[in-house]
Amino acid sequence: MDAILLKGVRLAGGGKYDIRIEGNKIASINKYDGDKAPETQKAGSGADCRTIDCKNFYAVPGLFNMHTHSAMTLVRGVAKGERLHSWLDQIWQIESYLDDEAIYWGTKLAVLEMIKTGTTCFADMYWRIPQAMRAVDEMGLRANLSYVLLDGGDPEKARLQRKECEAMEKEARGWPSRVGFSLAIHADYTVCDENMEWAAGFAREHGLKIQAHLSETEKEMRDTIARYGFSPVAHFDKYGLINKDFIAAHGLWLSDTDIETLGSRGATVVHNINSNLMLSSGYKFKYKELRDAGATVCIGTDGTASSDNLDIRESMKTTLLLQWAWRRDPAAFPICELFKAATLNGARALGIDSGRIEEGALADIALIDVRRPAFVPDYDFLSNYVLAADSSCVDTLICDGRILMEGRKVQGEDEILDKAQENAFRLMRKAGICK
Amino acid sequence: MDAILLKGVRLAGGGKYDIRIEGNKIASINKYDGDKAPETQKAGSGADCRTIDCKNFYAVPGLFNMHTHSAMTLVRGVAKGERLHSWLDQIWQIESYLDDEAIYWGTKLAVLEMIKTGTTCFADMYWRIPQAMRAVDEMGLRANLSYVLLDGGDPEKARLQRKECEAMEKEARGWPSRVGFSLAIHADYTVCDENMEWAAGFAREHGLKIQAHLSETEKEMRDTIARYGFSPVAHFDKYGLINKDFIAAHGLWLSDTDIETLGSRGATVVHNINSNLMLSSGYKFKYKELRDAGATVCIGTDGTASSDNLDIRESMKTTLLLQWAWRRDPAAFPICELFKAATLNGARALGIDSGRIEEGALADIALIDVRRPAFVPDYDFLSNYVLAADSSCVDTLICDGRILMEGRKVQGEDEILDKAQENAFRLMRKAGICK
Repeated sequence: MDAILLKGVRLAGGGKYDIRIEGNKIASINKYDGDKAPETQKAGSGADCRTIDCKNFYAVPGLFNMHTHSAMTLVRGVAKGERLHSWLDQIWQIESYLDDEAIYWGTKLAVLEMIKTGTTCFADMYWRIPQAMRAVDEMGLRANLSYVLLDGGDPEKARLQRKECEAMEKEARGWPSRVGFSLAIHADYTVCDENMEWAAGFAREHGLKIQAHLSETEKEMRDTIARYGFSPVAHFDKYGLINKDFIAAHGLWLSDTDIETLGSRGATVVHNINSNLMLSSGYKFKYKELRDAGATVCIGTDGTASSDNLDIRESMKTTLLLQWAWRRDPAAFPICELFKAATLNGARALGIDSGRIEEGALADIALIDVRRPAFVPDYDFLSNYVLAADSSCVDTLICDGRILMEGRKVQGEDEILDKAQENAFRLMRKAGICK
Repeated sequence: MDAILLKGVRLAGGGKYDIRIEGNKIASINKYDGDKAPETQKAGSGADCRTIDCKNFYAVPGLFNMHTHSAMTLVRGVAKGERLHSWLDQIWQIESYLDDEAIYWGTKLAVLEMIKTGTTCFADMYWRIPQAMRAVDEMGLRANLSYVLLDGGDPEKARLQRKECEAMEKEARGWPSRVGFSLAIHADYTVCDENMEWAAGFAREHGLKIQAHLSETEKEMRDTIARYGFSPVAHFDKYGLINKDFIAAHGLWLSDTDIETLGSRGATVVHNINSNLMLSSGYKFKYKELRDAGATVCIGTDGTASSDNLDIRESMKTTLLLQWAWRRDPAAFPICELFKAATLNGARALGIDSGRIEEGALADIALIDVRRPAFVPDYDFLSNYVLAADSSCVDTLICDGRILMEGRKVQGEDEILDKAQENAFRLMRKAGICK
């Protein structure tokens, strides 16, 4: 079995360790006791063992980006200065030209960016998922890809999507264990009630997670209340959708009752602060209340059309700053708890044994190079990592026991940059956005 | 005369250029017409000319960090979770042990960090400025270093500081042109009225800028009003301090009258969003109102004890996100205007002909490597640079016509990291913060 030894690596809790990875798991974590020859530590015994000298590195769990639309990297920088609903109009104009090739290269670019910024798993909500699957499989990252229901109230479209979704669920049974399949309900204002009900049953039947946009804007919340007489949360709840398998993105405009519903059902709420700020959707995310009610809070970037990157470490920083600011309390959200939201909580929401550096867990690890100004003094590593550094501090990324980046180099990155650029401009030309 | 040729470099406005730097200025900017041999373009004619192949680079002006306390890098990560006034108590405890060596290495670390993140000039407010001056001089950056008045109402201390300030002003006349000298009034609640009046006269007499903390917190604003019956702005204005040479940090809690005063006098207001968020001081910075009233708005990081880094590009992003969010208008602050605030406005506030890439201006230039995921697609460079990238995109930094960083390498950086770390822990041990 292939093995990797992280020699003398530091952990955020203090101390230096030798971490041994075997297959796709963390096999052992032992106190580092100097640079003995490998054979005396059985580092290489009985295996093809690769040793990484971690003198300048801390190890942290790979991050979880729990809400994104990965191939939207192709529309990065387009439609600046718009609010959510007019912004969507422009984005949808470009997206109408999406094809397999664009999705494939757009997802590859997204995965490349996530690798470079220390993310090992993402929850995705986008189109043509076989192409996204191909990109993720080749790149070696962990992901949960959802089939997106979005019918705009058209019964024929709704019916076709149910068919397609059923076929996709069957296909996904052959996917590698790294890549999960789920359903997505785009939002309660874009999916007909019939399909919301169908999705609840289908997910229950096949043990699938359901991703959804939920209460992102004040307008959305008010429109639903005006239309149905109850909130988006109550609307989803009517169909039994709010449960431990429900992963709601945003949840920015919630009543106390909504919070109680999400919490008591053990649902997951994914906070996407950069996107919420950029689209002026709001920032008073009720982290503390959701946590106390029993919900699992995770962190996401949203797609790059609104975020504009897939950098979860940066999103952690913005999350902290905004929680401290809007509550006027710099103790409102401790860094270690936020870090858990971006790692372990994501793993739990997806039912994966990752997001932690402990024996037996999946080997999803980022090695952080602290030989840079932002980590001096090395007084509080986690504070420096989240608040002072930028994400180029990730030197090496290991996912599922495989090294995906080392010395910041990722295999094939030049081709990805070129092909993604070509495909992005091809779509924009078709949409008349550029020549 | 030494010359540098930036060959085929892109500018944010579009197009590729050959930019020739001679001495410390931009000598010429010509349309790039392919890779002719250097001699046919007179690139190397009559000079020792260094050519940089800029195939993958955009050139942007070096950024201005218009408010910081540079050697506070040494307390990075200390005293998390505190509000401004209790936070200051802890920081001051460590600062009481500052000595020449600590200031020297702390400033070097700060300058290293600024070079790595694309800043070519900073306005500093800290102690023992001859040591800061030595660090800045050796590192090659541009700066304005202020002598800080802070007497806490003690007349003897106030008198001694006037003496010391007079001596420092004389010494500063011998500084290189890259480094300016100014006065600082720490805040109107820490400096006695006598010294505020004296500072106004002394600055006028010697043509000096005055830096100050101004209306940073609601408490500060309310306390001053309770004590004097008028706002901090009115308090400064009483002594004739609010004028075109006045550089106020924060200005977060301003009345309409305060804004009118700052604007009509042509004062500069430096916005430090990350620090304001982190200390829960507020975020409703009135950019538009200040600009419309005639004030010059600049961007700062504040010291790393509250920011936690000196990364102005990151501060630009947070500034945009917050302006868009609190006004609920994603068009509230165009990126290009924000970029001007972080470059040209800083240069104007300090009376330096920099902050722009034009013939005749000082050669303060960052070369941005766009061969990375955050810059794909290259549809809107400025948007990608400010919103998508992290600051490791700065490949090369030129200040005053000298290359301070190339390929992200800065001379002597290992020694700076080691010495700054040593000095930080030395101070923290003395202060009993760590063993």
